[in-house]
Amino acid sequence: MSQNLIPRKWYNIQADLPKRPAPPLNPATGKPIKPEELAVIFPETLIEQEMSTQRWIDIPEEVLNLYALWRPTPLRRARRLEQFLETPAKIFYKYEGTSPAGSHKLNTSLAQAFYNRQAGIKRLTTETGAGQWGTALSIACRFFGLDCTVYMVKISYQQKPYRRSFMQVYGAEVIPSPSNRTEAGRKILAQDPDCLGSLGIAISEAVEDAATHRDTNYSLGSVLNHVLLHQTIIGLEAKEQFKQEGLYPDVVIGCHGGGSNFAGLSFPFLMDVFAGKKVKVIAVEPAACPTLTKGKLAYDYGDTVGLTPLLEMYTLGHSFVPPGIHAGGLRYHGAAPLVSRLYADGLIKAQAYHQNEVFAAAVLFAQQEGILPAPESAHAVKAAIDEAMKCKETGETKTILFGLSGHGHFDLSAYEDYFAGKLQDVEYTQEMLEQGLACLPKV
Amino acid sequence: MSQNLIPRKWYNIQADLPKRPAPPLNPATGKPIKPEELAVIFPETLIEQEMSTQRWIDIPEEVLNLYALWRPTPLRRARRLEQFLETPAKIFYKYEGTSPAGSHKLNTSLAQAFYNRQAGIKRLTTETGAGQWGTALSIACRFFGLDCTVYMVKISYQQKPYRRSFMQVYGAEVIPSPSNRTEAGRKILAQDPDCLGSLGIAISEAVEDAATHRDTNYSLGSVLNHVLLHQTIIGLEAKEQFKQEGLYPDVVIGCHGGGSNFAGLSFPFLMDVFAGKKVKVIAVEPAACPTLTKGKLAYDYGDTVGLTPLLEMYTLGHSFVPPGIHAGGLRYHGAAPLVSRLYADGLIKAQAYHQNEVFAAAVLFAQQEGILPAPESAHAVKAAIDEAMKCKETGETKTILFGLSGHGHFDLSAYEDYFAGKLQDVEYTQEMLEQGLACLPKV
Repeated sequence: MSQNLIPRKWYNIQADLPKRPAPPLNPATGKPIKPEELAVIFPETLIEQEMSTQRWIDIPEEVLNLYALWRPTPLRRARRLEQFLETPAKIFYKYEGTSPAGSHKLNTSLAQAFYNRQAGIKRLTTETGAGQWGTALSIACRFFGLDCTVYMVKISYQQKPYRRSFMQVYGAEVIPSPSNRTEAGRKILAQDPDCLGSLGIAISEAVEDAATHRDTNYSLGSVLNHVLLHQTIIGLEAKEQFKQEGLYPDVVIGCHGGGSNFAGLSFPFLMDVFAGKKVKVIAVEPAACPTLTKGKLAYDYGDTVGLTPLLEMYTLGHSFVPPGIHAGGLRYHGAAPLVSRLYADGLIKAQAYHQNEVFAAAVLFAQQEGILPAPESAHAVKAAIDEAMKCKETGETKTILFGLSGHGHFDLSAYEDYFAGKLQDVEYTQEMLEQGLACLPKV
Repeated sequence: MSQNLIPRKWYNIQADLPKRPAPPLNPATGKPIKPEELAVIFPETLIEQEMSTQRWIDIPEEVLNLYALWRPTPLRRARRLEQFLETPAKIFYKYEGTSPAGSHKLNTSLAQAFYNRQAGIKRLTTETGAGQWGTALSIACRFFGLDCTVYMVKISYQQKPYRRSFMQVYGAEVIPSPSNRTEAGRKILAQDPDCLGSLGIAISEAVEDAATHRDTNYSLGSVLNHVLLHQTIIGLEAKEQFKQEGLYPDVVIGCHGGGSNFAGLSFPFLMDVFAGKKVKVIAVEPAACPTLTKGKLAYDYGDTVGLTPLLEMYTLGHSFVPPGIHAGGLRYHGAAPLVSRLYADGLIKAQAYHQNEVFAAAVLFAQQEGILPAPESAHAVKAAIDEAMKCKETGETKTILFGLSGHGHFDLSAYEDYFAGKLQDVEYTQEMLEQGLACLPKV
C-alpha cells in the first residue's frame, strides 16, 4: 500500500568514509586479497559490492518486489513507554520483526540469493547457530529456486527443533554440524564422535562444501561490506518515514553482533553526519562479549578455525568462545570492518550491557508496547531507555531511534530462564582478553 | 503512518440480519436470559453490545490508540502464489499475524479489557488451550492495568511452556487446569488427581472464579455477539484497503472455529450482500470437527460442562470432544449464533478440509509468500487455493480475499509432525454425530 516508501537504492558508506578500512588480506600470502580469490565462494557482483566506493547501488527489481512482501517495516513511536518512563524524549523504533523470517536478516539473504542465481549458481551453503540466519537464507533460496544447505550447530539442532522445522518448511537441507559431509567435519568427528559443534566448525563445513562444488556458493549473514550494504534499506526507509513526520533523530541505537543490523540502521544517518549533521550513534553489545568496548583493532580471522581472509576489525581474538548468553546473534568475537573503522575514528559510540538488565528492559518494553523483543534487539531497547532517562534528568526533548531487529517468538525459553533467575551475568576479564588476543595472527 | 485507515466504528451485523438468531436461554428456566443475569460475569457495555441492533458502534478512543500499535494490518496480494498456481484469479490476504499477540484475538481482548476497567473491574479470568487467546487477554489486561488469571488446560501447560512464558511476560497468572482454585477444579481432582484437563473444565474454572469474586469478570475469545462485533475491524479495514486499490472481492474466505475470525473478516462484506452485492462468503472448518457442514442447528451449551446459557447454534453436541488435530483454535463443538443464522439462511457457504491437505497448502503458501501460517489460518489458505484453481479451469478473473488470522511461530511442532507423516486425517462419522446430538438439552 505504502510501498512507494521502499528505497530503490542501497547506501554504500565506503563512498563517504573519512578513512577506509585496511584491505582484507590473504592469510597465506599476507597480501591484499584479489577479487578472483573470492570468486570460489562468492559471485562477481557481490565481490564488486564488497569493494565498491560508489555511493548508491541500485536494488534489483526482483529483490525490490520481494522486499514489498513485508516492507516498508513499521517505524513506530513508543508513546506508552515514554509515558511510563515520564521522559520528555520521543522514542521511536524501527521494527524488522514483521519480515517472514522474523528479523532483518532477510534483507541481505534475498539480495545474495538473487546475485548468486544470476551468476548461475544452483545451491548456497551457510552456517547457523540459533537459526535466524539459516531461516532467512532458506526463504531467500526458495524464492529464487536455489537449493540451500544449512550447517546447524549440533547442540542447537538438537535443542531447537522448531527453528530446524522452520527452515525445512522452505525446503532447506539442515545438517547437524560437525557432519560427515565435509573433510573438516569428518576430522572433528574422528577425534570426538560426540562433538556438539560450534559456529566456527559450521562455518568451516559450509565454506568447504561451497569451495569444493562448482555450482555452489557460500553465503554470510553479517560482517562483510556487501552484507552491511544490503541492510541499509532499514535506515534509508526510517529516514523517509521520519521525513513524513517532520522529524529527525538526535540519537540512533542498534544492537551489535557482527554489525549488519547496527550498520543497516545507522549508516544512512551517518551519511548526514559526514555532511555536518549532529547525530549520536550507539552500537550496543553484550558485556559478556564486548567486542567494541573491550576488544582491540587488529587483523584477525572472521571465523574461529582460521580459514577466512584476515579482516581489520575490533576483535576479542578468534579463539574467544563467548559464554552461552541468550542473545546468540551477538556472540561473535569480531566487529564488521566498516563498523570497526567508524568506531576507531570516533564517529560512533559503543555501550555494553549485562543480560539480566537487558531482559528487564525487554519485559518492560513488551508490557508497554506489546511486542516481545528478540534478546539481541533487547540490547538496543535497554540503551534507548537509558538515553530517555538521561533526557528526563536534563529535560531535553531528544528524538531517539532504536532498531528492534527481530521478535522473540523463538526465544521464550530464554525469557523463562530470566523469570526463573537462571540467567548469569558473566564478567569479561582482562585475562580473557589477553588469552584471546594471544592468538591474533602476525601480519 | 497510514493509521487514518483504521476504522473508528465497529459494524454490528445484528442491525441488518434478515432473520435474527433465537435469544439465548437461561438453562435453569428455559426462558430468554435477562441482561442482569449476565452482569455477574460481564460489564454492562458488553451486555448492551451483545444485544444491540445499532448498526455502527463507536470504538473508544483508548482502544483506537492501542489498535494503532499494529493496525492497519497488511492487505497483500499473493502474486507469487498466483503465478505458481497459474491462475487468472487475484488472491489477496488480510494478515492479522503482525499483532503483538500474533493473531486477530487482540482486537477483542483490548475492547473487553477497556470496558471492564471502565466498569471498575480489577481482574479478568479466562481459559486457554493452545494459548492464543490467553496471550491476547494477557496483553490487553497489562495495557489497562488489570490483573489477569488464565486457566490453561494442564496438558498444554505442560507441553507448551513457551506459550505460558509468553503470557507471563505480560504479568498474567497462568494456572494449570484443573486446579485447586475452584470448586469445579477440586471436584475433578478429587476424582482424578492426574486429570490433564480440557477446555470445558478450564471454562468452568474461569467462570466460577469470576462469578465468585465481585471485582472479577470473565472474558471470552469467540462465539458471543460482542466478540464478533469487535473483530469486524478486520473486514472494515480490508474494504478500505480494497477501495484504495479500486477493487472489491468476489470471494471472501475465513477459517471458522468459534466464529470470531470468520465473522470479523466477512461481516462487513455481508453488509454489502444485504444491500444486493454478490459476494461468495466461505467459512472453512476442519473435517474432523465439522460444526457447520455436519452439525445441527439447535439450542446447546457453549461449554462442554453445561454451565453457560443455551445458544442457538450449529453444534456437534457439547459433549463432543474433537480429536487432537493441530488447529487447536478450530476444535470447538459449536458455531457462533450469528454465523449459524447466516449459514441456516443460505447467506454463507461452509467447507471442511482434512489437516494433511491443509498443511500442504500452508507449506505451499509459506514457500511462495514467505509467511508461515498458523494451522487454523491454513484452512483458509487451502480454500483460497481451491477457489483460485476453479478460476483456472473456468478462466474467470475473480478477486479472492482470505483471512490469514495468525502466524505459525508457535506451531512448528505441528509442521514437524506433518513432515514426519505423523498427522492423522480423522473421519467424522454419523455415529459421532448421533452420540454428540444425544446430549442436546431439551428446550
